[in-house]
Amino acid sequence: MSPVDLEFIKLISVPSPTKIVLIVIDGLGGLPHPETGKTELETANTPNLDKLATKGICGLIDPVSSGITPGSAPAHLALFGYDPISFQVGRGMLEAMGIDFGLQPKDVAARGNFCTVDKGGLITDRRAGRISSQECAKLCQLLDGLIIDKVRLLVCPVREHRFVAIFRGEGLVPNVSESDPQQIGIAPKPVTALSQEASRMAGVANQFIAKTKTILAEHHPANMILLRGFSKCPYIPSIGEIYALKPAAIASYPMYRGLAKLIGMELLETGTTIEAEFKTLQENYAKYDFFFLHIKGADSAGEDGNFDRKVRGIEQVGSVLPSLNSLEPDVIVVTGDHSTPAMLKGHSWHPVPTLLYSKWCRPDRVTEFSESACLSGGLGRFPATQIMSLAMANALKLTKFGA
Amino acid sequence: MSPVDLEFIKLISVPSPTKIVLIVIDGLGGLPHPETGKTELETANTPNLDKLATKGICGLIDPVSSGITPGSAPAHLALFGYDPISFQVGRGMLEAMGIDFGLQPKDVAARGNFCTVDKGGLITDRRAGRISSQECAKLCQLLDGLIIDKVRLLVCPVREHRFVAIFRGEGLVPNVSESDPQQIGIAPKPVTALSQEASRMAGVANQFIAKTKTILAEHHPANMILLRGFSKCPYIPSIGEIYALKPAAIASYPMYRGLAKLIGMELLETGTTIEAEFKTLQENYAKYDFFFLHIKGADSAGEDGNFDRKVRGIEQVGSVLPSLNSLEPDVIVVTGDHSTPAMLKGHSWHPVPTLLYSKWCRPDRVTEFSESACLSGGLGRFPATQIMSLAMANALKLTKFGA
Repeated sequence: MSPVDLEFIKLISVPSPTKIVLIVIDGLGGLPHPETGKTELETANTPNLDKLATKGICGLIDPVSSGITPGSAPAHLALFGYDPISFQVGRGMLEAMGIDFGLQPKDVAARGNFCTVDKGGLITDRRAGRISSQECAKLCQLLDGLIIDKVRLLVCPVREHRFVAIFRGEGLVPNVSESDPQQIGIAPKPVTALSQEASRMAGVANQFIAKTKTILAEHHPANMILLRGFSKCPYIPSIGEIYALKPAAIASYPMYRGLAKLIGMELLETGTTIEAEFKTLQENYAKYDFFFLHIKGADSAGEDGNFDRKVRGIEQVGSVLPSLNSLEPDVIVVTGDHSTPAMLKGHSWHPVPTLLYSKWCRPDRVTEFSESACLSGGLGRFPATQIMSLAMANALKLTKFGA
Repeated sequence: MSPVDLEFIKLISVPSPTKIVLIVIDGLGGLPHPETGKTELETANTPNLDKLATKGICGLIDPVSSGITPGSAPAHLALFGYDPISFQVGRGMLEAMGIDFGLQPKDVAARGNFCTVDKGGLITDRRAGRISSQECAKLCQLLDGLIIDKVRLLVCPVREHRFVAIFRGEGLVPNVSESDPQQIGIAPKPVTALSQEASRMAGVANQFIAKTKTILAEHHPANMILLRGFSKCPYIPSIGEIYALKPAAIASYPMYRGLAKLIGMELLETGTTIEAEFKTLQENYAKYDFFFLHIKGADSAGEDGNFDRKVRGIEQVGSVLPSLNSLEPDVIVVTGDHSTPAMLKGHSWHPVPTLLYSKWCRPDRVTEFSESACLSGGLGRFPATQIMSLAMANALKLTKFGA
């Protein structure tokens, strides 16, 4: 869905007391197990999801486009109606979001590595021997707070040798090259401006790298840094403004919390289990009219190639569903951001099973929530970017277009 | 798929040793025979195709858009991922491709007719009594090699009264009107520039027509020419560059060879039978990672309204399939460029049955390769421009988009 279409949706969106719950089972879609011919979802025993599929309408979504395997950020942006190709989020931004850093609109974030250089300044280890996270935190403190040309450096540890450098100041344009040459035996590259207006950014970055080299000189193996993925908060219109919603996010992983914040959702404090997340939903149900509930387990199991653990992850979601049903939301959507087949041990391009329940959906003949059953579902196969407008319509939150 | 999307696909395409074979059965889709209610494909006995459909995933493609009947050039461009409306190939170009002429990027080609004019210069026969192809070749020799304002004329016979005129020189812009008035009893029209930068082209074309009139004066009935479809090689990014592939084309008809060349495929020498084409594939299998195999018979039979011959053409493809399976390609796609129902004796707008086989496709319940079975296939109904990215994904040749 293009930015123009979001403007259109905004024009016809109206506030109402109805409530929408969007449950995202990360990595939901799968591939058949060679022995059974059944996918993870087809293997899982999910009577509550099947009941909801029977009452509701089903289909399959393409997160980005046919054949495209999305990362988590573009896949989630699509679920919220943002065209994932128009709205791209840079690596530095994602890293900052991943640690739940309070980004400001003008901040430029870069992803950093501590690395090792020899006496001649040539890189001998791009990861500084994977120093411990504690060591990383200590070194970040040495760099944090530097001021260069009125730009304040905010340096935060991520994990092992990885950190985020946030450049906070005026006139910074992130269109610059990376200092990480992605190989050893050569010197880090100077950061260069890729367009004229980025020259200030390149200058500040190079001064920061030079100062860092001096500060870290005696901290072998972490005696230098490499920076890449310079990026800024992309302009993304707020989900609340587009859809006239008061949206809340229930997610325990930092990356998804960061993304939800970026698009203007309220972040609710929650625990790491599915039960904790559903409890958070119940406790806050009165206060919002849109809930994004993110469930991570199935994806991690899929990435590990653990078919059975992914099956159990999906079953868990089904088992807590009655606590949601008791709230009687006007619209419930259950879907995934992308497929993560255990057989592929990673994200994939396969379309994602999707079910929508509301009092106003036109039910189909699907009686089971699965990839194969969704194939003949009433929603058909459609772009993920259309889920929000479908949910909005079913919540009677979209007015008629035209007379 | 827009040019922007091709840029996107290029960014995520990576070379790999996996191999894709795209089999295009020209004019594959059909309409039911009134006596049996079965289409050509449904009538054909194709156990090998049905087996592949069972193991793979099926669907229906729209070459251009719902209701649009495509010519062969746009239909093929779509199959390779090029939006057929953005990338249009002019008539002159197509005619030059059709005779496998070695076009250069700056060449302007026009489609020509020998015609008959009376003493007053008025057209009496737009086709010069359909002179023989031999006569056409002889007359072309009289015109071939003329030089006008440093522009060299290359005039090649096509068939009967038809020829191609290629203008080779600097500064030629094909945005000019046609000299063919498409009716008799009036004089050929002067070629006029439709934009300022095309005035040189118009001038050269008019001088060429004037010289031709003198040269042909004594060659009644072919004593004049008509030119139309002035066009240049459109800029079409190379398929190998977009998809990081080493592509080869196996096609016996000049038009398809020309099109494959235009998009940067290697042309393999082959025979005119299906068996010869599959043998060429086997012999060259090690050298490329993408094969476009074009099979013409079914389309010609459809155009002739010969239902049974089209059935046999499709059966032949099925019968040679085992020789392909033995090569174990990572991805096999079987589709058509468009439908050519024998009942319509021509191309049509009907969607085209499509099957994709790979180790990583999520199989559906289709057990038969036919229009009606593909309707419930897992690929659904989708634009032809998405076939390449699907094939690429299934060959694990696309990296993840975004983090």
